[in-house]
Amino acid sequence: MSTSVSTGGVTTGPIEGSTKEYLEVEHRSGLGTVDGLRVPTRRVHLTDGDHLDLYDTSGPYTDPNAVIDLERGLEPIRDSWTRPEPIDGAATQLGWARAGIVTAEMAYIAAREGVDAEVVRTEVAAGRAVIPANHRHPESEPMIIGKKFAVKVNANIGNSAVTSSIAEEVEKMVWATRWGADTIMDLSTGKDIHQTREWIMRNSPAPVGTVPIYQALEKVKGDPTALTWEIYRDTVIEQAEQGVDYMTVHAGVLLRYVPLTAKRVTGIVSRGGSIMAAWCLAHHTESFLYTHFDELCEILARYDITFSLGDGLRPGSIADANDEAQFAELRTLGELTTRAKAYGVQVMIEGPGHVPMHKIVENVRLEEEWCDEAPFYTLGPLATDIAPAYDHITSAIGAAMIAQAGTAMLCYVTPKEHLGLPDRDDVKVGVITYKIAAHAADLAKAHPRAQERDDALSKARFEFRWTDQFNLALDPDTAREYHDETMPAEPAKTAHFCSMCGPKFCSMRISADVRAYAEENDLVTAEDIDRKIAQEMAAKSEEFTAAGNQVYLPISEVAAP
Amino acid sequence: MSTSVSTGGVTTGPIEGSTKEYLEVEHRSGLGTVDGLRVPTRRVHLTDGDHLDLYDTSGPYTDPNAVIDLERGLEPIRDSWTRPEPIDGAATQLGWARAGIVTAEMAYIAAREGVDAEVVRTEVAAGRAVIPANHRHPESEPMIIGKKFAVKVNANIGNSAVTSSIAEEVEKMVWATRWGADTIMDLSTGKDIHQTREWIMRNSPAPVGTVPIYQALEKVKGDPTALTWEIYRDTVIEQAEQGVDYMTVHAGVLLRYVPLTAKRVTGIVSRGGSIMAAWCLAHHTESFLYTHFDELCEILARYDITFSLGDGLRPGSIADANDEAQFAELRTLGELTTRAKAYGVQVMIEGPGHVPMHKIVENVRLEEEWCDEAPFYTLGPLATDIAPAYDHITSAIGAAMIAQAGTAMLCYVTPKEHLGLPDRDDVKVGVITYKIAAHAADLAKAHPRAQERDDALSKARFEFRWTDQFNLALDPDTAREYHDETMPAEPAKTAHFCSMCGPKFCSMRISADVRAYAEENDLVTAEDIDRKIAQEMAAKSEEFTAAGNQVYLPISEVAAP
Repeated sequence: MSTSVSTGGVTTGPIEGSTKEYLEVEHRSGLGTVDGLRVPTRRVHLTDGDHLDLYDTSGPYTDPNAVIDLERGLEPIRDSWTRPEPIDGAATQLGWARAGIVTAEMAYIAAREGVDAEVVRTEVAAGRAVIPANHRHPESEPMIIGKKFAVKVNANIGNSAVTSSIAEEVEKMVWATRWGADTIMDLSTGKDIHQTREWIMRNSPAPVGTVPIYQALEKVKGDPTALTWEIYRDTVIEQAEQGVDYMTVHAGVLLRYVPLTAKRVTGIVSRGGSIMAAWCLAHHTESFLYTHFDELCEILARYDITFSLGDGLRPGSIADANDEAQFAELRTLGELTTRAKAYGVQVMIEGPGHVPMHKIVENVRLEEEWCDEAPFYTLGPLATDIAPAYDHITSAIGAAMIAQAGTAMLCYVTPKEHLGLPDRDDVKVGVITYKIAAHAADLAKAHPRAQERDDALSKARFEFRWTDQFNLALDPDTAREYHDETMPAEPAKTAHFCSMCGPKFCSMRISADVRAYAEENDLVTAEDIDRKIAQEMAAKSEEFTAAGNQVYLPISEVAAP
Repeated sequence: MSTSVSTGGVTTGPIEGSTKEYLEVEHRSGLGTVDGLRVPTRRVHLTDGDHLDLYDTSGPYTDPNAVIDLERGLEPIRDSWTRPEPIDGAATQLGWARAGIVTAEMAYIAAREGVDAEVVRTEVAAGRAVIPANHRHPESEPMIIGKKFAVKVNANIGNSAVTSSIAEEVEKMVWATRWGADTIMDLSTGKDIHQTREWIMRNSPAPVGTVPIYQALEKVKGDPTALTWEIYRDTVIEQAEQGVDYMTVHAGVLLRYVPLTAKRVTGIVSRGGSIMAAWCLAHHTESFLYTHFDELCEILARYDITFSLGDGLRPGSIADANDEAQFAELRTLGELTTRAKAYGVQVMIEGPGHVPMHKIVENVRLEEEWCDEAPFYTLGPLATDIAPAYDHITSAIGAAMIAQAGTAMLCYVTPKEHLGLPDRDDVKVGVITYKIAAHAADLAKAHPRAQERDDALSKARFEFRWTDQFNLALDPDTAREYHDETMPAEPAKTAHFCSMCGPKFCSMRISADVRAYAEENDLVTAEDIDRKIAQEMAAKSEEFTAAGNQVYLPISEVAAP
């Protein structure tokens, strides 16, 4: 059904029912140069002649005119844009935003989000939004993470010690961004970490995040106690040079917080958190991530890498949510946020995890209070522990709610969470599920253009434009496939009925009759209606009876193929 | 993997890892008789020798000692229980509760929910909870719907004009209750409606609801304008005699409300609502369901059938949520609630549909205010319209939130919603998804025993008791299957590591080390820890180095099969 084809191991071609279009934007820099920005959009073509443009994360892979060559990588579009001079030493989006400069990246994002560029600059300057864009990842299409903008979704990929290969991981990146992932995290832990990441970086249109401690741990053969600041620092620089856009750093796991987890039901469940806990306990020394934090800020500032301050002590179960260990670390992340921003480094804060619904809002409130409103980036949270194999759903509930409360980016969870490694199908289900959560939050926050898509799809549904309904869906292929299962024939795609009621009776068609009646009789308010009813009740009844009581079309008109 | 087998077309046998047990309860009626009640429970057996008892909706089908004979039907257990005399003419749970009588059904429910019988009686007497239990459905295992109790889930089944068969529908009922459906609605619209329902009634351990207008419409060959009160009334009596426990009645769709839907994006999407709208418009007369409501109350009171007052004007899209038409009808449902209760008839109120997150709570607030806190029973709601094929998820988000706000029962939505008819797999996914939403709400409402299951599962997860983790899950079979995909070997089920980190490094194992360390050193509060750190920092560091920096077990001890 899908028009996609596999090229060189990755999926290319437009998403069903849509084409790739570019918005041409001229950005005039303060340096007198003009950058020509081409901002991608996904245009869904409707059968009524209309179309709807959607935010597009899929990069050149969905553009049939783009030449995809994984060996060569994507075109380094940002290299041709004007890069402002460093401001007080910080050549970062934060530094420039504070200095009143609208960068090409900000202009690009403004067009993408449908807002004024000044809104982008202001939010970045205040530290309420981040633009993860390493100078060495020129292939990326700039995007923003902040609560004033559309809620974003991150997809984790990465091979592990147990399974997976490089080619699979690159395809997972392409596949995840095809379905709407805004950023990718490469969490590889096995062999060929450097090489896998290089392939992903050079071919990713989305910002890429990593957790450098994972690779550092590989360098010491998996023994956390053998880690040193120097090994870690060199790993950060290695990844910075490759173009990693944001890095998870668990610098808030302090020695004195570790024993606070001892009475928990599930202890420490973050890999990074437990690595650092093991190191701190073994050496009885404060975490080197904390003690060397200033040096880390200097490195990240040089590349404009965004900190994603990790929640190493996040709860791994409902029982452990919002406990002393979790919030102790969050306070420290607040302190680190202030220190990082002083270096001009952009910062976001990672959040839980597993949290029952009534404790979700408190997480956002404290994060905003203690971390100076830095964008919150949460993993779910799962609203219950009892549904392994369905944790994309348990966590989508928490994710939608925490995003409504102000979380700016959601890290997806796949059906395999807690059980195994996600395959291609799991990645898609995880991304689509999280697009649902993010979009539900955009609606609840009255994000300017969010409801356009719901309205267009619902209108198509009401008018029995089945193909439009499929094509406006987050996953056109699966929607069409499910319809085919019950109503396989092509005529059913244009039939004015659906499988729930069958051809004889259709509630949606009766509604259309109601509408026609109201329009004919000029009924708008409840008062109009009461008046009309009083006037016409007797007359109308006769008229309808004379017309054979037909408020819907005869069967023959709709059931014929 | 599952131990289930198919007997006579339906699935029988215990759910993986559990056995059927019965709580023996003696109920002393006011009439001096003693009823022996056997309240079923699902006992999950854990590998550490412990067990956990769970609320069990699956009926005799999961009891290997029960003889299943679909022709004969289930044992009519309630026929042997004492039935109190009618109180002021109303032989209903509401009538008896008001008179201070604890019925056998209430005693059964109290044991099932783990609360005092007096709590059950009080909530029913106040109309805040209902016990749908037609005197003519003696095979049913009593259950309660009310916000003080565990949130319940309904599964819709039923053949349609387009597809399906009787045997399939009976199996769907067995299958849905196996996975946790608390009630079943038979929404059949095609041929053999009466016969299909008879099979379901005689074999259903769960209360069964219907929408009588569907069958009435069949009797007039699908022409809504040909409906009459008499045809409808006779259909209600026919279904009442068969034992239907609750009936959806769209008596709030008044003539003057119909044109209020004309400007909507999706008009009227409820089948019952559109049938009545078509009838009202055609005849320009007030709905016969409204004008004959008192007669309907008299009928329902005789059988103790519960009203499920239908929301015929519920929104079918985000755009139409919380509009004038929807709330006009809700006010009328409030009026009808008062009238029904005056006849001693139990009442619940149906709710939407499609509602963005920020408009969900208002639905509960108005329902409680206008309908005297009658239990709310909602369909989702879907928090966005843009994900056909994933509407079990879009709606689980809304369902969890509306249940947290006080909704007592959730009507499930399957992945096929808007696209086709659910098959067996869809029914299971729909039920499991809604059990997640219901359970998340139970946690958020601090329902007494809800968190026991989360804690038991999380503890099993932390201790690498994989089999226990699977068996405590809502869907043990799928959890195990997903684990097998990545780690197929049986030893992996007892291995102290998982596929995310592999055997070399495991965050959960490090947590266990932290715990051991804290216990050894008697660390509980943050102060203990600070003191300990100051005392021992230097000493401990030496000691750990001497011990070879081992904070976790050597690989060889865990990687061996």
